[in-house]
Amino acid sequence: MTPEIPDIVIGRLPIYLRELTLLREEGYEVTSSHELGQRLGISSAQIRKDLSWFGPFGKQGTGYAIAYLQEQLKKILHLDREWQVALVGAGDLGRALARYGGFAHRGFRITRIFDNDPAKIGSYVGNIKVLSVRVMKEEIERIGIQVAMVAVPAAAAQQVTDALVEAGVRAILNYAPIVLAVPEGVHVQHIDPAAHLQHMTYYLG
Amino acid sequence: MTPEIPDIVIGRLPIYLRELTLLREEGYEVTSSHELGQRLGISSAQIRKDLSWFGPFGKQGTGYAIAYLQEQLKKILHLDREWQVALVGAGDLGRALARYGGFAHRGFRITRIFDNDPAKIGSYVGNIKVLSVRVMKEEIERIGIQVAMVAVPAAAAQQVTDALVEAGVRAILNYAPIVLAVPEGVHVQHIDPAAHLQHMTYYLG
Repeated sequence: MTPEIPDIVIGRLPIYLRELTLLREEGYEVTSSHELGQRLGISSAQIRKDLSWFGPFGKQGTGYAIAYLQEQLKKILHLDREWQVALVGAGDLGRALARYGGFAHRGFRITRIFDNDPAKIGSYVGNIKVLSVRVMKEEIERIGIQVAMVAVPAAAAQQVTDALVEAGVRAILNYAPIVLAVPEGVHVQHIDPAAHLQHMTYYLG
Repeated sequence: MTPEIPDIVIGRLPIYLRELTLLREEGYEVTSSHELGQRLGISSAQIRKDLSWFGPFGKQGTGYAIAYLQEQLKKILHLDREWQVALVGAGDLGRALARYGGFAHRGFRITRIFDNDPAKIGSYVGNIKVLSVRVMKEEIERIGIQVAMVAVPAAAAQQVTDALVEAGVRAILNYAPIVLAVPEGVHVQHIDPAAHLQHMTYYLG
């Protein structure tokens, strides 16, 4: 894998994969950069350029075989396996995430939930028992979990993150409204609904 | 406002604004495209190019005055006012969003919450009374709300969206794990945690 591929390009691959899955659900077997671009609001040139980092996926004039391109994107994004995910925070948001239908078939499964609230520890969210954050490090290390979601209040998020990193987690999805500091080699993505809203109000005026 | 500015550029402006706010909280008054780029993992050339769509904000050699650039970005994104937001869905996720600390001071305030569950209608989430979706259209029209968040199950999300659009909403933040269809002129952003996770697993391998 070429290491110099811009991160911004990597970030678009899951969007392409999502749209390909949708196209296939709609019964299509072949698509084009033009069609994908139309549906995603991205230029076809951009899509061709992004994909060309990883190889020639389509033939001039015949477009992309959707199933093949899906499979290749899954390999590139390391989704040819299922990733166990540790969820920290069993409040409203944590419970919503544990029940969220958008992880299945996309490579992720929440298998551990942690909280520091004695009232929540030992309770069940779906079929997963909420564990104490006190056992978080040993549990994550033991299973070798590398992916986590942080759904705790802002004031606790950095401390939780430090503990996750210490336990060996290398990818963190942060729902708290703060910017997390992590050492090099650890990846953070920030779910920032206000930024999405701000993106749209540009067009409202 | 030049209409040909790529949407992908607009999408980065809230990220710049967020980082500027953070820099200011840390006590900085001036920054540079280099510093911003380092902190955000975006090239300084990209940042200069993005901002140059909107005017010359910095002087060669002296960088950007943070407060001024913040103010300009807020104007560009129409954040020089507060947007009322309608939230549909008073389940776990809806309640988490109603309490979320990341909207304050960023231009948005949830002022109406709707649900179709008789057990939830009439209850309070924070200090907001949950209203029936039956009165949603008239309520949104009456107040002139243009921004909404959809936090309902996937099976209900398109129907809710159609009703919001009919009521005059023009910007929708979708938390349901489906792609929503909306007419031209209505904007949708999709909170898709699986896509963020997939972006990160690229680097795990």
